[in-house]
Amino acid sequence: MDETFGNYSILGKAIPRVDARAKVTGQAKYAADIEVANMLWGQINRSPYAHARILNIDTSKAEALPGVKAVTTGKDFGGFKWGWSGPTRDEEPLAVEKVRYQYEGVAAVAAVDEDTAQEACDLIEVDYEPLPGVFTPSEAMQEGAPLVHDDRPGNICVEYHWNFGDVDKAFAESYLVREDTFQTPRMAKGYLEPPAVVAYWPDPERIVYIGAKGSPYFPYRILAKCFDLPLSNVRIITPIIGSDFGGTKNDMTPADFSAVMLAKKTGRPVKFVTSQFDALTTDLRRHPMWITVKTGVTKDGILKATSLKAVADGGAYTRISPLTMFLVGTCQTLPYKLPNFKYDAYNYFTNNPSSAAMRGHGLYHSRFAADVQLDMIAEELGLDPVEIRLKNSIENPKPGEIYETVNDVHVATCGVQECIEKVAEAVNWKARKGQKKVEGDTAYGMGFAAATYNSGTKLSAHNACAAIVRVCEDGSVNYLTGATDVGQGSDTIMSAIVAEVLGIRLEDIDLKRVDSAFTPVDPGSYGSRVTVHAGEAATKAAEDAKSQLLEVAAQQFGVKPGDVDIKDKKVFVKSSPERNMAWERLVRIACYETPGKVIIGRGYSTQGISMYGLADFSKGVGDIGTNYSFTAQASEVEVDVETGVVKCTDNNVIAHDCGFPLNTQAVETQVQGGSYHQGISAAVYEEFKMDSGQTLNPNLVDYKRPRAYEAPMTQVIHVITNDPYGPFGAKEASEGSCCSAPPSIVSAIHDATGVWIKDLPAQPEKVFWALKKKREKGQK
Amino acid sequence: MDETFGNYSILGKAIPRVDARAKVTGQAKYAADIEVANMLWGQINRSPYAHARILNIDTSKAEALPGVKAVTTGKDFGGFKWGWSGPTRDEEPLAVEKVRYQYEGVAAVAAVDEDTAQEACDLIEVDYEPLPGVFTPSEAMQEGAPLVHDDRPGNICVEYHWNFGDVDKAFAESYLVREDTFQTPRMAKGYLEPPAVVAYWPDPERIVYIGAKGSPYFPYRILAKCFDLPLSNVRIITPIIGSDFGGTKNDMTPADFSAVMLAKKTGRPVKFVTSQFDALTTDLRRHPMWITVKTGVTKDGILKATSLKAVADGGAYTRISPLTMFLVGTCQTLPYKLPNFKYDAYNYFTNNPSSAAMRGHGLYHSRFAADVQLDMIAEELGLDPVEIRLKNSIENPKPGEIYETVNDVHVATCGVQECIEKVAEAVNWKARKGQKKVEGDTAYGMGFAAATYNSGTKLSAHNACAAIVRVCEDGSVNYLTGATDVGQGSDTIMSAIVAEVLGIRLEDIDLKRVDSAFTPVDPGSYGSRVTVHAGEAATKAAEDAKSQLLEVAAQQFGVKPGDVDIKDKKVFVKSSPERNMAWERLVRIACYETPGKVIIGRGYSTQGISMYGLADFSKGVGDIGTNYSFTAQASEVEVDVETGVVKCTDNNVIAHDCGFPLNTQAVETQVQGGSYHQGISAAVYEEFKMDSGQTLNPNLVDYKRPRAYEAPMTQVIHVITNDPYGPFGAKEASEGSCCSAPPSIVSAIHDATGVWIKDLPAQPEKVFWALKKKREKGQK
Repeated sequence: MDETFGNYSILGKAIPRVDARAKVTGQAKYAADIEVANMLWGQINRSPYAHARILNIDTSKAEALPGVKAVTTGKDFGGFKWGWSGPTRDEEPLAVEKVRYQYEGVAAVAAVDEDTAQEACDLIEVDYEPLPGVFTPSEAMQEGAPLVHDDRPGNICVEYHWNFGDVDKAFAESYLVREDTFQTPRMAKGYLEPPAVVAYWPDPERIVYIGAKGSPYFPYRILAKCFDLPLSNVRIITPIIGSDFGGTKNDMTPADFSAVMLAKKTGRPVKFVTSQFDALTTDLRRHPMWITVKTGVTKDGILKATSLKAVADGGAYTRISPLTMFLVGTCQTLPYKLPNFKYDAYNYFTNNPSSAAMRGHGLYHSRFAADVQLDMIAEELGLDPVEIRLKNSIENPKPGEIYETVNDVHVATCGVQECIEKVAEAVNWKARKGQKKVEGDTAYGMGFAAATYNSGTKLSAHNACAAIVRVCEDGSVNYLTGATDVGQGSDTIMSAIVAEVLGIRLEDIDLKRVDSAFTPVDPGSYGSRVTVHAGEAATKAAEDAKSQLLEVAAQQFGVKPGDVDIKDKKVFVKSSPERNMAWERLVRIACYETPGKVIIGRGYSTQGISMYGLADFSKGVGDIGTNYSFTAQASEVEVDVETGVVKCTDNNVIAHDCGFPLNTQAVETQVQGGSYHQGISAAVYEEFKMDSGQTLNPNLVDYKRPRAYEAPMTQVIHVITNDPYGPFGAKEASEGSCCSAPPSIVSAIHDATGVWIKDLPAQPEKVFWALKKKREKGQK
Repeated sequence: MDETFGNYSILGKAIPRVDARAKVTGQAKYAADIEVANMLWGQINRSPYAHARILNIDTSKAEALPGVKAVTTGKDFGGFKWGWSGPTRDEEPLAVEKVRYQYEGVAAVAAVDEDTAQEACDLIEVDYEPLPGVFTPSEAMQEGAPLVHDDRPGNICVEYHWNFGDVDKAFAESYLVREDTFQTPRMAKGYLEPPAVVAYWPDPERIVYIGAKGSPYFPYRILAKCFDLPLSNVRIITPIIGSDFGGTKNDMTPADFSAVMLAKKTGRPVKFVTSQFDALTTDLRRHPMWITVKTGVTKDGILKATSLKAVADGGAYTRISPLTMFLVGTCQTLPYKLPNFKYDAYNYFTNNPSSAAMRGHGLYHSRFAADVQLDMIAEELGLDPVEIRLKNSIENPKPGEIYETVNDVHVATCGVQECIEKVAEAVNWKARKGQKKVEGDTAYGMGFAAATYNSGTKLSAHNACAAIVRVCEDGSVNYLTGATDVGQGSDTIMSAIVAEVLGIRLEDIDLKRVDSAFTPVDPGSYGSRVTVHAGEAATKAAEDAKSQLLEVAAQQFGVKPGDVDIKDKKVFVKSSPERNMAWERLVRIACYETPGKVIIGRGYSTQGISMYGLADFSKGVGDIGTNYSFTAQASEVEVDVETGVVKCTDNNVIAHDCGFPLNTQAVETQVQGGSYHQGISAAVYEEFKMDSGQTLNPNLVDYKRPRAYEAPMTQVIHVITNDPYGPFGAKEASEGSCCSAPPSIVSAIHDATGVWIKDLPAQPEKVFWALKKKREKGQK
C-alpha cells in the first residue's frame, strides 16, 4: 500500500529501513560475529537434572585440560543474586546450592576454542542429589509439594487479588453468566540470532560487555552490582540485534555473567555464543497459563462484569512474572467497557525453565480467553460477533477528554470501533455471516476479534530516557540514543523523527548504536515503549538542536527565530521563502563563526500521561501504558475436517489504531508479523512439549512454526487517532495485533467446524479429537 | 610544595593525576598496544632522495610476495591534498609526482606481519629522477634556486610585514639602538611513544581510526574529505597518548592515510607503528630560525621600538608555518611595553622534513632573541638585568581594565612584575649580582629572563568546543570531552573541575576519552588551549548538570534551588546545613522519581575575550590568545671553561603567572618540564644536524637530550592573577616557561664566561670556540 498520512516530509509514509542495506548485504555485525583480539571461547556446564542439590563440583580435570584458561562456578559470584526487585532477586549467575530447572548453568569454562571449552565442561564433575520436582502449577500448589525455593512456601511466586466495582452484584443482575477456562502454551521467543556476548576488562576496574541486549541498561545495572563497580565503569555495547520478542536478549544469561567473570580471571576477552539447543531448552518462554473467565452480560450482550482467574507456570525463577501477572489483568477493562472487574492471579514456581515476557506480554492470555468467550456469549444470545463488539467497545474520547476504566486506566484515544467497522467492511462481514463454506473435507470459517495493548510501558523505576542530536560541521547528524532496535525498526523511526524535525533527509541521520559509556540511558526495547518514549526524547532533542540553528539563521536573515524554518534541507524565512540558504551553509556558519557553536540537542522523555502516576501492581490500579493501541481483525481458516489441520487463508484483514503510523511500512509489517506470523503460530502451531521438566522438542523440526508459505497475505488498515501522548500522535503497533490473532482464529475454527478450541495451540491432533467428539456427540 | 590556593575542595591544590595508576602499572593502552582481530600490519616505502621526480612505481613484486594483502600509492588518493588552509593545501598522503624531503612516503603495504610488510616495501621499485634541492633559507631564497613547489616562486611559504607606530622615528630618538641576529635550531618533539594507528572500515561507508592524536578532530575532518564521507561516518578513537609537544600527533602522517586506504582495500584492520628512526627522520620539527632584532632604548633602558626579522626553514610543506610566523611576531609586544614595533617574516620551503609547532610555539624564537638582547642592552647601559626588566614590564591591569598593546593584543591580567620580583628575591639576586664564582676550570653564572605565552589559542575556525557531564544513577559521573590529554594532565584538570563544580570527589568522575562518534567536538591539544577552553566547557557542563539536580533537591527540601548547594558529596540547605542528604540519594531521587530524569549537563566554550575578535595574520593585529601567561626565571649554570660543557645547577627558580593554578602539582611539573627539561634541552643540547636534507643524527645517542640526572631541581613559584577569561582564573602553564629558559641560560653563560651564545644550542664545541676566541681577543 502506498498510503500516506499527515503532512510530513518523511513521516506518515513508507520509510525504508536504515539498517536494511547492512542486513541484506551481510555487512551487519551481530554479537556472534564480533571478534576481539586475543579472544577466548566459553562454554557452560549445565545440569542434567531439573531439580537437584549440588553436593560438590570438581573442576580440576577441566582446569588441567590443555587450552583451558579459566573455570568459574557460582561460588565465584559471592552470593550475588539478581531478579525483578528486592525480595524477588532469587537467581544466581550459576547455580550454587541447587539447580531448579534442567540445563541450568552450573559452571563455565574459558578456553582457546569452543571445542576445548566444551570438552572441559564435560570434564567438570558435579555431584548431584536429585530432588523430586514440581512441573505444573497444579503440582506446585499441592500441600507438601517439593519447594523450588525453600524460602517461598507454597511455590507461590506472584499473587494478586483485585476487585473493582461489585462483581457479585453484577453477576446477580446479569441475564447470562458464563464461565470458561482457557489454556495458553509454553512458547519459544523465536529469535533466529543466537544470544552471544564478548566481554573483557580493559583494566581491573572496568567491564566492556558487547552483546545482543534489547535493554542494554539492564546488564549495565546488573553487572555493576554483581562486580561491585560504579555504573560509569560498565560499558555495554550493542551490535545489530537479530530480534528478541521479550526473551533472553532482554535479560541475563549464565553466559553473560560467566563471560565477564572468566574475562576477569583470564585478563582476556571471552566470547560465548548460545547454541540453538541451549536457547530452546533454557531461554525464557511465554508463560503457560490457565485462564478462567466468568462473564455476566445483559440480554443485549452488554458486559456487566468479569471475574478473571489466571494461574501461570512461572518456571524456576521469578524473572518478570510480577509484571506478566499484572498485565494479564490490567487491560481486561479494555477495549470493551467493563464496569465491574475482579482478578485473581497465581504464578507458581516450577522446575521448568523460567517464563517471561513475550510479544503481547500478558494481554495475549487474557484477551484470548475473554474475546473467545465473547463469541460464545454472542452465540448463546444469538448476536453477531461484530455487533456484540461494537456494542461494548469504548468510544474514542473527544479531543482533550479521557476515558477512565474502573481500574484507573486512562485512555486519550481509542479507535477500536473504527477498527471493528473497517475490518467488518473489508471482509464483507455482513454478507459472509452464516454462509459457511465446505469443499470436500475442507471447511472454511471466519472469526473476529478485537484487542488492545499498552504502549510506552512505564515501570516503577528506570523509566527515564533521553536522546542527543549532534549536528556535525558538514551538516551530517549523529543521533545518540540508549534505545535499541531489536528488529522492530525503531532505529528507522528515530532517524526519521530526527530528520523530520530538523527538516533534512533520512540519510543525513546517523544513529549511533548503544554504548553505555556515551549514549544516554534508556530502559530498552520492551513493553512497546521505544517509539513512544525514545521517540519523544528524539523529537525534543531534534527540536532543541533545531532551535539553536534557527537562532543563527534568524541572525543571518535579520528576523526572529520564529520567522525561520527548515524543510527539505533549505533554511528559509517563512514569510518570504525566496530568502533561503542551504542546510549545510547554515550549519557551517553556526560552527565556524566566532565563537563557534557545537550543536548538541538534548531531549528527555517525560512519559506522556504521567499525571496519573504509575500503576500499583498489588492493587491493580493505574496505567502501565502511556497510551493504548487498539486492533480488530478477521481471520479466515480452512480446516481439514478429516485430519484436523487448520490453515489460515489470505482472506485476512486487520485494522490497527497505532495513533499515527510514523512509518506505514513498519506498522504494516509489524502488524503482519505480530498477528499473522506470531499470532497464527500461537494459535495453531507452537508449543513446547514437556516431560518432568525436560523439553521434548528442542529443535525447529519438532517445535513447529509456520513456514513462510504457511503465513497468509494480510491486509492492514491504518486507523488514525493521533494520540496526544505519543510523538506525532503515535502508539504501539504489533503487540496488540499479536493478541487479536489467536481469538479470531479460534473463532474462525468454530465458525468452520462448530468446535471451540479453548486450549492453544489448535494443532491437528487437538482439532481432530474435538471434531471426532463433536461428531460422536452429534451421532448420539 | 604543599601550597594551596583559593577556597576550593579540590582545585588550587596538588591533585593526583587520574591516569597515574594506569600509567605506572602498565595498564594504560597506547595506540601501539591496540590489537584488533584479523589485523594486518603496514609499512611505508620511503624516498631515499630529498628532492626527486617520481618517474614510475612498480609494485608488482611487492604484491606477489606471499602474505602481502594490498599495496597503495599516492595515485589511489585521487589528487587529494591537505594542509593549513585552501591555497596552502600542498601535501599529498603519499608523494605522487615528486618527493620533497628525504624519506617522504611514496607507497605503503599491508601484510600479515610487520616484517613481510617491510620486505614488500623493499620490493617496490620506484624510478626517481634526482633533482637539485634547497636545504637552507639562504639557498631557497637565491634567484633561480630549485623550486620545492613549482607553483610557489621564490620558495616563499609565508611572508608577513607588519608595522605598528613609527619604528624609524623611535630609533632616531633612541639613546641606544642595537641590532643582533640570533639562531635557533631544528629540534625533535621528543615524544617517547611512537606514532601509531589502527584503522578499519566497519562497512563500506565508515572509517574507524584508532590513533595517538592530540587533536583527533583534525583527522576526523581530513579523513572525511580524503575519503569523501560525511563527518558522521568518520570515527576517531584516541587511546592514552604518550606526549606530543606539537608534533606529528597533532597532524597527519603517510601512515595515517595509508592505514585507512589499505584497510579499505583489504577489508581488514591495518596497523602502523612508526619506528624511532622514521620518527626522527620524518616527523615534524621545530623551525630552524634566524631572528634579527633591532631595538632602540632610552638612556634609562626604556624600550622605544623593536624591529624584528624572522627567517625560517619551513621544510618541504606548509603545515602550520603560517601560524608559526604569526606567533613569532605577535607577542613581541609582551611582556614588556613596546610602543613601536615592526615585523618582517619569511618562511621558506626547503627540501628538509617539514617544520611545525613545538611547545612554546613561535614565541620561543623571538623571546630568546629579544630577552638575550635586553641583557646585552642592560650591559651596555650598565643596568641590572632585573632592573631593566622591571622598568619595562607591563603592570597588572586593575580588575575590569585591559592592557592593550600597539598591535591590539588584550591583556586582562599580567603578573610579570610579581614574577620578576619573586624570582629575584628567591635567588637573592641583589646579593649575587656581580659576584662571579670560579672554582678551578668551572665558572658559575646566573641569568635572568622573562616570557609570556598566549593561552586558549583561537584560530579563524574550529574554535568551538563543548563538554557533556552525565550523572549515572548511582552518582558516578561520566565526563565526555573532545579534548585530549597528550600527557599534560588535562584529563585530571577536567575531572577536577567537574568534581569541584558538582561538589563531589575526583574519583567519582570518569572521563571518557575521545570517540568522535560520541564525544563533542574540540579543536584538540595545541596552543595551550585545553584548560582554558575545554575547562570552560567542563565548568559549564557541570554547572548545568548541577542545576538540574539542585532543582530536585530544592523540591525535596521545600526551598528554592538557589538555597541548596552540594559540597563533599552532601546536598544541603545553605541556611540550615543540618537539613541535608547524600549525593547518591539525591541522584537516585532525580533518576527514579516519575518522570525519571536523565541528568545530562551540557557546556560550551565561548572563548573568553572574544569581543575583540580574532587575530588577523596578515596585518598582525588581534588576539591569538584568550589570555596570556607570564613567567620570570633565573638560571644558574656551571661552565667548564676548558671543554665548553655547560651544566645547569639546582639553583634555579621560576615564577609563573598561570592566573590560578587549578592543580598546583601539574603547574609545577609542567613548568619544570617546559623550562628545565625542554628549555635546557633547547638551550644546551638539542639540534638535528643536516647534510643536504639528510638527518645525520637520527637516534637518541647522537641527538642528545639531557638525561634525568642532567635536569636540575627547580623551585616553582606560583603567581596568582585570577584571569577573568580562564576557568577559575586559569591561564596556561609550561609553554611560556619553555620560552624563558633559553635566554636565562644563555645570559647565565655570559654571566659565567663573558661570551654571548647567539646560536642555540650552546653545545660544548660552540662554547669552547667562543671562549677560545674571547681568550685570544683578550690576549691581543
